[in-house]
Amino acid sequence: MRLREIVLIMFAFLLLPGAVCAQNQDADDVKQMFDETLRNGKSYEWLRYLTTQIGPRLSGSARAAEAVNWAKGELQNIADTVWLQPVIVPHWIRGSEEDAYIKGNNKKKNVAMNICALGGSVGTGPGGVTAKVVEVKSIEELSQLGSHRIKGNIVFFNRPMDVTQPRTFDAYIGAVDQRALGPSAAARHGAVGVIVRSMGLNSEDYPHTGSLRYEPDAPKIPAIAISTRHADALSQALKEDSALQFYFETHCEMLSDVQSYNVIAELKGSEYPEKIILAGGHLDSWDLGDGAHDDGAGCVQSMEVIRIYRGLGIKPRHTVRVVLFMNEENGLKGGIEYALQAERNQEQHIAAIEADEGGFAPRGFTMTASQQFRNKVMGWKPALEPYGLTDFSREGGGADIGPLMKFNIPLIGYMPDSQRYFDYHHTKEDTFDKISKRELDLGAGSMAALVRLIDKHPE
Amino acid sequence: MRLREIVLIMFAFLLLPGAVCAQNQDADDVKQMFDETLRNGKSYEWLRYLTTQIGPRLSGSARAAEAVNWAKGELQNIADTVWLQPVIVPHWIRGSEEDAYIKGNNKKKNVAMNICALGGSVGTGPGGVTAKVVEVKSIEELSQLGSHRIKGNIVFFNRPMDVTQPRTFDAYIGAVDQRALGPSAAARHGAVGVIVRSMGLNSEDYPHTGSLRYEPDAPKIPAIAISTRHADALSQALKEDSALQFYFETHCEMLSDVQSYNVIAELKGSEYPEKIILAGGHLDSWDLGDGAHDDGAGCVQSMEVIRIYRGLGIKPRHTVRVVLFMNEENGLKGGIEYALQAERNQEQHIAAIEADEGGFAPRGFTMTASQQFRNKVMGWKPALEPYGLTDFSREGGGADIGPLMKFNIPLIGYMPDSQRYFDYHHTKEDTFDKISKRELDLGAGSMAALVRLIDKHPE
Repeated sequence: MRLREIVLIMFAFLLLPGAVCAQNQDADDVKQMFDETLRNGKSYEWLRYLTTQIGPRLSGSARAAEAVNWAKGELQNIADTVWLQPVIVPHWIRGSEEDAYIKGNNKKKNVAMNICALGGSVGTGPGGVTAKVVEVKSIEELSQLGSHRIKGNIVFFNRPMDVTQPRTFDAYIGAVDQRALGPSAAARHGAVGVIVRSMGLNSEDYPHTGSLRYEPDAPKIPAIAISTRHADALSQALKEDSALQFYFETHCEMLSDVQSYNVIAELKGSEYPEKIILAGGHLDSWDLGDGAHDDGAGCVQSMEVIRIYRGLGIKPRHTVRVVLFMNEENGLKGGIEYALQAERNQEQHIAAIEADEGGFAPRGFTMTASQQFRNKVMGWKPALEPYGLTDFSREGGGADIGPLMKFNIPLIGYMPDSQRYFDYHHTKEDTFDKISKRELDLGAGSMAALVRLIDKHPE
Repeated sequence: MRLREIVLIMFAFLLLPGAVCAQNQDADDVKQMFDETLRNGKSYEWLRYLTTQIGPRLSGSARAAEAVNWAKGELQNIADTVWLQPVIVPHWIRGSEEDAYIKGNNKKKNVAMNICALGGSVGTGPGGVTAKVVEVKSIEELSQLGSHRIKGNIVFFNRPMDVTQPRTFDAYIGAVDQRALGPSAAARHGAVGVIVRSMGLNSEDYPHTGSLRYEPDAPKIPAIAISTRHADALSQALKEDSALQFYFETHCEMLSDVQSYNVIAELKGSEYPEKIILAGGHLDSWDLGDGAHDDGAGCVQSMEVIRIYRGLGIKPRHTVRVVLFMNEENGLKGGIEYALQAERNQEQHIAAIEADEGGFAPRGFTMTASQQFRNKVMGWKPALEPYGLTDFSREGGGADIGPLMKFNIPLIGYMPDSQRYFDYHHTKEDTFDKISKRELDLGAGSMAALVRLIDKHPE
């Protein structure tokens, strides 16, 4: 063995106790954050108020404005600074009651179908839409059928989410093109309306809403989601009578844009106040349910990050900034405006974490980040995995923080267990009673622990 | 480099593709088991029947007998062989309605308390018990107070579960001595009754039952669980008036033993029919709720292991035996009898897996096994972790399979996420509506995948 090798090995042994010690210290710090929120967390009571006292808060609605004021008030009790960042948002409303059925004839009665308008859809108005139905499994199949088969008909996109995907978001990504892009694709072929199988994995009685995207080159035709059970029923009915007539009536409309706000709160950094670690969720929700999992949970967990620091009497070295974004669901105006202002004001973000996958038990973090940052997070695994945070392999961050990609900083998503998310997502079932206090608290602890580790070991 | 080294390295390279290939094959096999149950699983509909049509099934009850017959019938549709193994079980009943309150006086009304008798407790009878209350945090504190402080009083064990434990079972283990051993410990000091804080982590309105253990040397005094919220209320009331009188009335009693059964079903092994891989849960449940998570889930997941093999048209090499044990909750007579008969009949078990931690999303497996077996399971991690099965570090197996330890075989417990388990455990809230179909299916897939891997790679 050469001298250089001996020196290197001795050096490594000198470093080793330091590394082990740092790791133990990280584990203690992580535990401190979790212990504080598990003992004294406010997430659950905050979420109770936001969901049961304020309720659903679609962008532009009075309740969205109420949520902004409430969050500002709560954050003023715990943060160094709180302000509202103006954002102009769309204002889509569902309007009066929706209706749909398979039309009866001499022998049969109408068969009612559980549906809801897709977010952003035009309404049918009082006359409704009545037409024959062409069932397809994909936009590709629609194109193959062509305009001569589609024109004047309702297109029914009925490809189920793939239940064999272990992570439900993968099943969602594999099916949601039908909802987002299906309406314009069908309209280009002359369809008069669109029915989309709900983005749910189970056989359910309630429909899932969510945004569609009207393309500029296609007529805007009304589009609805149908419950998975009734999607199966309609498919069966079409097998028995391919000429059946389907009726639906919706009263949704897009009103004028509305002035709204991102809610922003900070704990100033003691050493690097100009450098920002962002933690956030989105304050708006769909109009069905009360937006408990999507994304009330992410909002109160982000607020709790600041509360944990306060509860422990710890000051972060970098500024910890909580952002409750407006309008993630149908426009992303809050996220876009936030990144624009950050650029204008030459703000220095060092990392951004979003929680927007529901208030479930921890599984890990998704990341859009350099290999160097990923390696660093992997090094924190021993401290994080006692809390179920074991998976750091997936790409991702969050819709609202996506526009920060231009700053070339790590974008991180809190990744809870995904199994129940699509039981509730965008439905009347996304309500406070589906929240487990412990699961919610553990999500807040996960966010706070990661903020703490990044604050200790910035890139 | 010496020749021997070169040969060894070449040899390693020759083996490498084989090892990788075997690992890929394992991943395919695991996926096949999960896919089958996620697509065609019967666990959820079985559990719906067991819980909503049969209901709670405490050992010795008519519904426990009904559950035995139902399970036998269902298993006869899918297994090669089904039989009932006789077991004599205790028959404890709760009797007529329970009642408890803090007694009022001239100024105050009685304050009702939510309680239930602990399983196995003697009843107070119609007169109830009225006495002053001594609150303690532990059996140790009780001993320190001594008989002169305890005699003639009710002892109130009020040490909460530790909310900072990431795994809730650890919090349970840290508190349950109060329920199991507290009544006899208090009786030895002359107490006339015992109140135990419910084994729950949240502030809840409903009490958690569960077994106590009367020691032969102590008088049998009546014991109840009180809801966590009322435990806090009682503790507060005692701070205001340490001389307050507490009243409770229970009508539970132990009747004569009853003939019951373990339900056993087999798929015969194609190569080693005499070697058995056991998968099981327990068919009995407490009388509150309907035993959906504890342990209806484990029963239907075990049954589903056989159904998955059938659905795929695969024969196992070893015999796959499903055992639905009777009387886990208050006697373990089924587990004890099963091991006794296995020994008498000189049966060869190669591994046993129990599912008895609720129907939640997969986290891993607990094991009481040799290091060699643990290493083998760690080698299967790449195939298992896509389904959330990442933690194989914990000791454990299952209560019912515990008596098989004398065979020196791997004892394994399916370990789902623990966060919500103690929201429901032993309460009226443990009902079918708390079950997520996907989480239940993934548990069945986890059991089936592990059985398949052990079948492929026995020790």
